[in-house]
Amino acid sequence: MNHFGIVIMAAGKGTRLKSALPKVLHTVGGKALLLHVIDAAKTAVTAENILVVVGHQADRVEAAATPTGVRFVLQPEQLGTGHALQCVQQWFHANKIAPPENLLVLSGDVPLIRPETIEELRDTHLREHAAMTILTAIPDDPTGYGRVLRKQDGSDDVAGIIEQKSLSDDMLATPERLREINSGIYAFDTQKLFDRLGRLQNTNSSGEFYLTDVAAMMVNDEERVIAIPADSVDEVLGANTIAEMMHLDASLRERTTTKLMAQGVTIFRPETVTIDASVEVAADTVLEPFTQLLGKTKVGPNCRIRSYSVIENCVVGEGVLIRNGSILTDSIIGDGAQLGPYCHIRPESHIGANAHVGNFVETKKTTLGEGSKANHLAYLGDAVIGTGSNIGAGVITCNYDGVNKHRTTIGNGVFVGSDSTLVAPLTVESGAYIAAGSSITEDVPADALALARARQVTKPDWAKRKREALQEARKAHT
Amino acid sequence: MNHFGIVIMAAGKGTRLKSALPKVLHTVGGKALLLHVIDAAKTAVTAENILVVVGHQADRVEAAATPTGVRFVLQPEQLGTGHALQCVQQWFHANKIAPPENLLVLSGDVPLIRPETIEELRDTHLREHAAMTILTAIPDDPTGYGRVLRKQDGSDDVAGIIEQKSLSDDMLATPERLREINSGIYAFDTQKLFDRLGRLQNTNSSGEFYLTDVAAMMVNDEERVIAIPADSVDEVLGANTIAEMMHLDASLRERTTTKLMAQGVTIFRPETVTIDASVEVAADTVLEPFTQLLGKTKVGPNCRIRSYSVIENCVVGEGVLIRNGSILTDSIIGDGAQLGPYCHIRPESHIGANAHVGNFVETKKTTLGEGSKANHLAYLGDAVIGTGSNIGAGVITCNYDGVNKHRTTIGNGVFVGSDSTLVAPLTVESGAYIAAGSSITEDVPADALALARARQVTKPDWAKRKREALQEARKAHT
Amino acid sequence: MNHFGIVIMAAGKGTRLKSALPKVLHTVGGKALLLHVIDAAKTAVTAENILVVVGHQADRVEAAATPTGVRFVLQPEQLGTGHALQCVQQWFHANKIAPPENLLVLSGDVPLIRPETIEELRDTHLREHAAMTILTAIPDDPTGYGRVLRKQDGSDDVAGIIEQKSLSDDMLATPERLREINSGIYAFDTQKLFDRLGRLQNTNSSGEFYLTDVAAMMVNDEERVIAIPADSVDEVLGANTIAEMMHLDASLRERTTTKLMAQGVTIFRPETVTIDASVEVAADTVLEPFTQLLGKTKVGPNCRIRSYSVIENCVVGEGVLIRNGSILTDSIIGDGAQLGPYCHIRPESHIGANAHVGNFVETKKTTLGEGSKANHLAYLGDAVIGTGSNIGAGVITCNYDGVNKHRTTIGNGVFVGSDSTLVAPLTVESGAYIAAGSSITEDVPADALALARARQVTKPDWAKRKREALQEARKAHT
Repeated sequence: MNHFGIVIMAAGKGTRLKSALPKVLHTVGGKALLLHVIDAAKTAVTAENILVVVGHQADRVEAAATPTGVRFVLQPEQLGTGHALQCVQQWFHANKIAPPENLLVLSGDVPLIRPETIEELRDTHLREHAAMTILTAIPDDPTGYGRVLRKQDGSDDVAGIIEQKSLSDDMLATPERLREINSGIYAFDTQKLFDRLGRLQNTNSSGEFYLTDVAAMMVNDEERVIAIPADSVDEVLGANTIAEMMHLDASLRERTTTKLMAQGVTIFRPETVTIDASVEVAADTVLEPFTQLLGKTKVGPNCRIRSYSVIENCVVGEGVLIRNGSILTDSIIGDGAQLGPYCHIRPESHIGANAHVGNFVETKKTTLGEGSKANHLAYLGDAVIGTGSNIGAGVITCNYDGVNKHRTTIGNGVFVGSDSTLVAPLTVESGAYIAAGSSITEDVPADALALARARQVTKPDWAKRKREALQEARKAHT
Repeated sequence: MNHFGIVIMAAGKGTRLKSALPKVLHTVGGKALLLHVIDAAKTAVTAENILVVVGHQADRVEAAATPTGVRFVLQPEQLGTGHALQCVQQWFHANKIAPPENLLVLSGDVPLIRPETIEELRDTHLREHAAMTILTAIPDDPTGYGRVLRKQDGSDDVAGIIEQKSLSDDMLATPERLREINSGIYAFDTQKLFDRLGRLQNTNSSGEFYLTDVAAMMVNDEERVIAIPADSVDEVLGANTIAEMMHLDASLRERTTTKLMAQGVTIFRPETVTIDASVEVAADTVLEPFTQLLGKTKVGPNCRIRSYSVIENCVVGEGVLIRNGSILTDSIIGDGAQLGPYCHIRPESHIGANAHVGNFVETKKTTLGEGSKANHLAYLGDAVIGTGSNIGAGVITCNYDGVNKHRTTIGNGVFVGSDSTLVAPLTVESGAYIAAGSSITEDVPADALALARARQVTKPDWAKRKREALQEARKAHT
Repeated sequence: MNHFGIVIMAAGKGTRLKSALPKVLHTVGGKALLLHVIDAAKTAVTAENILVVVGHQADRVEAAATPTGVRFVLQPEQLGTGHALQCVQQWFHANKIAPPENLLVLSGDVPLIRPETIEELRDTHLREHAAMTILTAIPDDPTGYGRVLRKQDGSDDVAGIIEQKSLSDDMLATPERLREINSGIYAFDTQKLFDRLGRLQNTNSSGEFYLTDVAAMMVNDEERVIAIPADSVDEVLGANTIAEMMHLDASLRERTTTKLMAQGVTIFRPETVTIDASVEVAADTVLEPFTQLLGKTKVGPNCRIRSYSVIENCVVGEGVLIRNGSILTDSIIGDGAQLGPYCHIRPESHIGANAHVGNFVETKKTTLGEGSKANHLAYLGDAVIGTGSNIGAGVITCNYDGVNKHRTTIGNGVFVGSDSTLVAPLTVESGAYIAAGSSITEDVPADALALARARQVTKPDWAKRKREALQEARKAHT
């Protein structure tokens, strides 16, 4: 490991959540708490320099974080933050790895921490040659939090960290000195930290080894302990309850909508819109209230996404209109296309430029060519449709025979009459015309007409006689 | 009647609502105001000890409250709160019923009153042997409310109730004494109340008999009048306008989401979610924004309810996924089922474990067996479908012949091809296979193939010739 | 022009919006900023007395505002507000039109200005015989705004307008004198204004001619300059960023919901509901959360509009139930009708009294007669349907043959069986009965039965043999 390493605390259970899911795997802003922290950490150091301390449901937490490339330290029992760092110290020793000169400690349940803040903490720590640098915050009401006390000797260094319950009457009499809280995020000189971990005591009411006690040891040893406040309080807030978690979620969502609006995206009632941080939207696109843009979605300029639509992992072109309640997943939508309301574009669909997909239409693994239309109540699965074709209302591609899925291929300029059933595998060549209500089971050559329906039979007065018979029967009954 | 009775004032019109509906029948939190109050009252006394004073549109109010088992006192003209109690007094006399020793008076338009508060008011009243106990609140801005003045003789008893307009300059000079407002909710020693009702005067600007005047009489007679403040101001707030009513609605909704989150339910953007107080949700279930859980709905653990879904009076099992915009009513959903998006599960549907119901599918009085699927654009009404069957896209049960409804019965492992029409009454036995596009009118035996569709006819170049003829015609036209 | 004219400033680009759309064409409350201001102005003067100063993308702005009947003055370069008025002065001269005696100057990007405020500004200006009257506001935090200083000689007239950066230390020492901000909205004695425009200097950091400098000239010349504060700060707020624009949008929406609730409309979670100011809703109608009423929609009394529904330019009768997620545009809905969930009523539909339109049903240019029903998965386009008819599930009117649209006419009391295809042009007369699954291509006389479907063929054990063959093949394969 090099100069700087990061330890992320992720071993806790989060008892107050009342949840079977480990705390750090709960989701805010569309992503697990821990993954937010890892992503922020990865902008400061490479993944292999990040150690995640796991404990409660360690397997589950490791499985979730493994794709990020971080390494894991097991804290088999959760005996406090000091104990977690003891496990880290042992891990370096056991693996015969030289620890980095400095260690930054993050909390896996403080997901709003920004890369800029991590970098500032690191840079200040190095520049000031501190033994320990504490990230702090100054909330409106610090009650309940551990407080960071500054020295009053002009140096502004840290005099100590004091828990709420240990505040003396003297201190409570000068509340203005007590507004700065400990975020639980620190930078350490690794050697000076490791030298002291063995001396931590758990002779407190909870029987835990506290990392905060290291601050007192350092101060006592005349090592330099400093503190820097974070830009905003939200950034260092953890979540002990689901309600607090939902507050962090709202903060993250607001960050994203604020950023997009500043880039020229119009977002009506931005507080109702759900956009993942990974989404890109071009200027002059309008998002109506209650829309959701998720995952790796990219939306071009001059689009309008109407209310209640949900778009996940899609690439949407320029000037696209997506009407109310459309659901799009893992698909590509061409420039000028018009979709919905209430269409369902399932994965691997490709809707061509200026194509139309209307209400109650479902596509799956289907290409709809440029300018083609499927406007009403259709199911198009495993289909390739050319340009300028018209798919009538109620048309269904029968892609599944109970055992296998088969493909339907439709050329350019094809007219598929309403309520037709296209039994795949099937090819309908360009310019063909399929009569409404037909079940098509054989390929249709170019420019041909195909029809498959029964001749109409009309029986005069049948309905009248039936009604009369019914009335007779009813009379007889009463 | 026994020791304690409750009177609920529900005779008023609510003129400022501008509504034809009586005020106490307006709905907040999914339930009429009056029914909230009755439900709270019923946790303190039995229904027959609750008297609801009705007047404006008395029939309509009685009809709404009768199922709760309460009794009604008619206040034919609305001449004030004091007059309402006079009507109650007369009702006891006319019906030759001994009144309870103590009477608690609630307002039918103060729906957030909690059972705990009613019980505390009752218990304090009895313990303190008071003649009258007033429930109060301390709002940020008491302007406009009647104020409860405490004695300053050390007893802390009530000195009087004073309306805003009657506040003296002396009183206005000591606003800290004037912050406690009268909620209009009281406990009385019944005999001491009834002894004074006849002496109430209506010589005031509105010509009404005020119950608050009893407090002055009591104090004057050296009877003990005390006051206890409610835990929160919201709890004693009434609603005179629809905007105020909507504020109470939001308070009630927040109470429910807060409770559920504390139990381990994840609710994203909880301020957008509508959950009736009667709903139960197990821990580790996730509710997305804009969802609605109504009535007696019960949702098991590890479910995910996606946005815009509305679930009313349903029992939803464990690990169920309900995708966006699904609407479920009076139905049962088995463990591991996957529904939606945009499915409509109408009453008396039973979706089996691990069954799938997809987009634009409607069920009504239908059982879909374990592991069966109906994934696209189908209508299943009055149907019983076994396990492991596949219902193709666009399949319709023709359950209605214009006169009667008939049943469709489908066995296990049946494949119903897309766009088939099942004309009920009909039985399709296990293992049968129905070809796509068929209209099935006769029962299908087990393991058989049934098909009913016309043979395809293909006419080469028909479409081309038609296009050419059309072009000719157009040319001729121009 | 007569006594009073109005100039609306609409030439700016709005650089901070990061948008290709001119600022005044951005939309809040469902209408472009500029159109809000023009509409307010039109209540004070006639359209031909309103001059809109255009510059950036002048063509586009003119195109948007032309239908309102206003006139346009081109400001070819945007050299400041003073320069805009110079262009106005030249326009009167060039067109040989006598300017009005007084000119009111509004900002095209201050959309919340109310007609009442414009009238009060006009009336005060005239009554006080002022040379210039400034509309002001008193925000919580005036930092950054130009301040209006009052004289301290007892007259309360304006001493000057001072930009934030020009505030002297003296002034900053008396912040209570500095709370009144300049809204940029003024009334002028036209002659006194025009006399001074030529003397404006652009020797400032931005090189622009400022209209505010006229105030100093007037004061210097001992002309009377007065100021009146607007009722609310929001009313004079402009928007320089999209986030600020969205704040104005929310304000406008709240104005409308507040007004409707005061009229007896119940709106649950009013902050989530989108209602254009032009919409009318009768008392005792209930709007659920997340509904949208747009354009010229009128809704009668005792309706219930359920969540996620969007109604645009529709007339909805009395006692109508519109279930969740229904989308209605440019249509008429009769008394007692029941729609949805998820129906799509497209333009020129007329749903009769007590008619039902159910889930996943689309109508377009279609009349559904009184009491008729189309409850499931249907497409009805270019159709006229009589009274008491029943349109089965999955019925489709094939109104398009690839070239032209044709009409379907259905009489009274007709039963159209499920999954029928009605190939237009087609007439089905009253009392007729169409068998399920039929493709109807010929007219059906009154009271007749029409059917067009193939006879069912059942092949015993076919499915079983097929499964067995499949298993054999699989075995052979492994």
